[in-house]
Amino acid sequence: MITLTSDFGLKDPYVAEMKGVILTINQKATIIDITHDIEKFNVQMAAFTLASAASYFPEGTVHLAVVDPEVGTKRRAIIIQTKKAYFIGPDNGILMLAAQSQGIKYVYQLTNTKFMLPTLSNTFHGRDVFAPAAAHLDSGVQTCEFGPEILDPLEPEFAQITRKGSSVIGEVVHVDGFGNIITNIGPQEFSSDSKIFKVEFEDDSLKLAFAKTYAQANSHEPVLVVGSHGFMEIALNLSNAAERFHAKAGDKVTITAS
Amino acid sequence: MITLTSDFGLKDPYVAEMKGVILTINQKATIIDITHDIEKFNVQMAAFTLASAASYFPEGTVHLAVVDPEVGTKRRAIIIQTKKAYFIGPDNGILMLAAQSQGIKYVYQLTNTKFMLPTLSNTFHGRDVFAPAAAHLDSGVQTCEFGPEILDPLEPEFAQITRKGSSVIGEVVHVDGFGNIITNIGPQEFSSDSKIFKVEFEDDSLKLAFAKTYAQANSHEPVLVVGSHGFMEIALNLSNAAERFHAKAGDKVTITAS
Amino acid sequence: MITLTSDFGLKDPYVAEMKGVILTINQKATIIDITHDIEKFNVQMAAFTLASAASYFPEGTVHLAVVDPEVGTKRRAIIIQTKKAYFIGPDNGILMLAAQSQGIKYVYQLTNTKFMLPTLSNTFHGRDVFAPAAAHLDSGVQTCEFGPEILDPLEPEFAQITRKGSSVIGEVVHVDGFGNIITNIGPQEFSSDSKIFKVEFEDDSLKLAFAKTYAQANSHEPVLVVGSHGFMEIALNLSNAAERFHAKAGDKVTITAS
Repeated sequence: MITLTSDFGLKDPYVAEMKGVILTINQKATIIDITHDIEKFNVQMAAFTLASAASYFPEGTVHLAVVDPEVGTKRRAIIIQTKKAYFIGPDNGILMLAAQSQGIKYVYQLTNTKFMLPTLSNTFHGRDVFAPAAAHLDSGVQTCEFGPEILDPLEPEFAQITRKGSSVIGEVVHVDGFGNIITNIGPQEFSSDSKIFKVEFEDDSLKLAFAKTYAQANSHEPVLVVGSHGFMEIALNLSNAAERFHAKAGDKVTITAS
Repeated sequence: MITLTSDFGLKDPYVAEMKGVILTINQKATIIDITHDIEKFNVQMAAFTLASAASYFPEGTVHLAVVDPEVGTKRRAIIIQTKKAYFIGPDNGILMLAAQSQGIKYVYQLTNTKFMLPTLSNTFHGRDVFAPAAAHLDSGVQTCEFGPEILDPLEPEFAQITRKGSSVIGEVVHVDGFGNIITNIGPQEFSSDSKIFKVEFEDDSLKLAFAKTYAQANSHEPVLVVGSHGFMEIALNLSNAAERFHAKAGDKVTITAS
Repeated sequence: MITLTSDFGLKDPYVAEMKGVILTINQKATIIDITHDIEKFNVQMAAFTLASAASYFPEGTVHLAVVDPEVGTKRRAIIIQTKKAYFIGPDNGILMLAAQSQGIKYVYQLTNTKFMLPTLSNTFHGRDVFAPAAAHLDSGVQTCEFGPEILDPLEPEFAQITRKGSSVIGEVVHVDGFGNIITNIGPQEFSSDSKIFKVEFEDDSLKLAFAKTYAQANSHEPVLVVGSHGFMEIALNLSNAAERFHAKAGDKVTITAS
């Protein structure tokens, strides 16, 4: 099984070309799209999305992810073998959140031209380098055959949380299609006695009680819930919280128990 | 075979997480997306779309549909077994148009936690409750194993047509991506001698003759056709009728033979 | 294996209905979407996209493409057998770029109602005519069983390049989701000594050196590269060139070596 994540969109032939390459090498591959609507060049959004989705896929899945603004330069192509699955993509941090959460066993640089298309473009390694590698890996080729082991994959500097007194300062890591504002702050950061929280965005702040789910608030009223990935999430029941609070991925967010 | 219908969009990891859950339980499942671009929280649009598509799928297909504004509350999760297929989703009417058109045999409440993910979120039952149920059903688990039979699934109050003299008053049930205005009024409501019809929208009215297909009108001129689901549809050849006539789903439409 | 290309979008039930029809006839079919986001009625964009993608699919693939403004009129439905694959769609040129690049062996008119749905709508032959034909072809039915051979499929009048002195005049054939401006002018039109090129759009002109890939330019600066389909492409590193230069598909573009 092979999953695909990219910023290619679905309007152009690019994603289909990758699938054609995979199915030409391995006609029995099952290919599942995670998403191709990553914001162009947004490696962090891709890393978050891949990490969220990958944990629900079976053991041995090959996850291919390509947001690759440096395609055709000296940036490396890599394969990561974790305790559960495989990750293929550029060495720009896109794979690391997902791979680290599964436990990394080995990282290889993808250099063996035997597993690439015979003619390489300089602008589309998703099709010419990563897709054939994914197909061969899914067909049973061993990770060590793709190139030398490396010990220094690029570590992304993604959002960390910090504390200041009783406040936890984190980041909006994702705004989903419903406008839910997903932070990187987990409920375990606070005492389980805490009932009321002050949430500060860059432009706005509000006091909220924890709710179990969206529909516990009245229509268009805000709730603070633990979202489906285990992090604190600010939502409006039946409305778009990100629009109301002018929040977007990357914004600072501070949560304080009171 | 499992189909998926939702308002989750394809930008977030949610749909992929559902597919990962299904494929972890049943690696051989064939998963087909009906659409994930249902307008957020629009149960009626989902019901129309599912009913349209489901009639073209093979016997025994498992149709999973999730537009679920009340996720995490006491709203029930249900499985409907029809004479042809299976439907899984929240008990909010989303499944009923499709299920009724196939003939409902049994309805079960989905309560058996054995067929759910071990840890349930409160905000994403598509992944944690409905997806695993669909995978198990597709693998051969009997419907009666998922929970108790119920006799009172929620009946949606969707558009009905009424008559007033020689006029038939119905509703725009869908505006498609071409801007075609699809009503819930079938051609059998009128004598087959009727050649000219007056169509009244909320903001506009026009007289039209029946056409066999769009291209029988001149470019950008209106036509009245029987659309591909058997209902009367107002279109502009090569243009967007919904924009021209300011029509949207839910609008009243009156058709009169003259 | 069957690929699908259309202007139907993914919001409506249309694409799923086609897939349901295919899987009812041939439950083992592998269906891959090329794209359903072709601009409405834009046969040339579909032809370009199909030709780009089809060359990466395995031998024997059945490619179904439907952008069909004349559905329900006397326009013919055709099947083209090439040296590598099969193409099914309306006889309006949509299939020809792809088919010609593979070498056409036979063209048949699709007339045998045995391979259509029992009830035909006038507005959706993608579902009622083309999808069942694709499923039967993929199941092993011979091309000659679908209808009579024809010798005059419609030849599209798509973009040709012309020369004027040292200038090559071509067309923007596609603007991709990144805003890259893809022309129909290949690098072989120029001496390999040429290093600097003048590119003239309808509203703008600029001088550019060839680059190997996007990231050789500074951020937001223009580059001229050979794109992944072998044609000259004007891009901005990390930005949208089509917006900057007001270029769109169909625009004239002139490139002159200097």
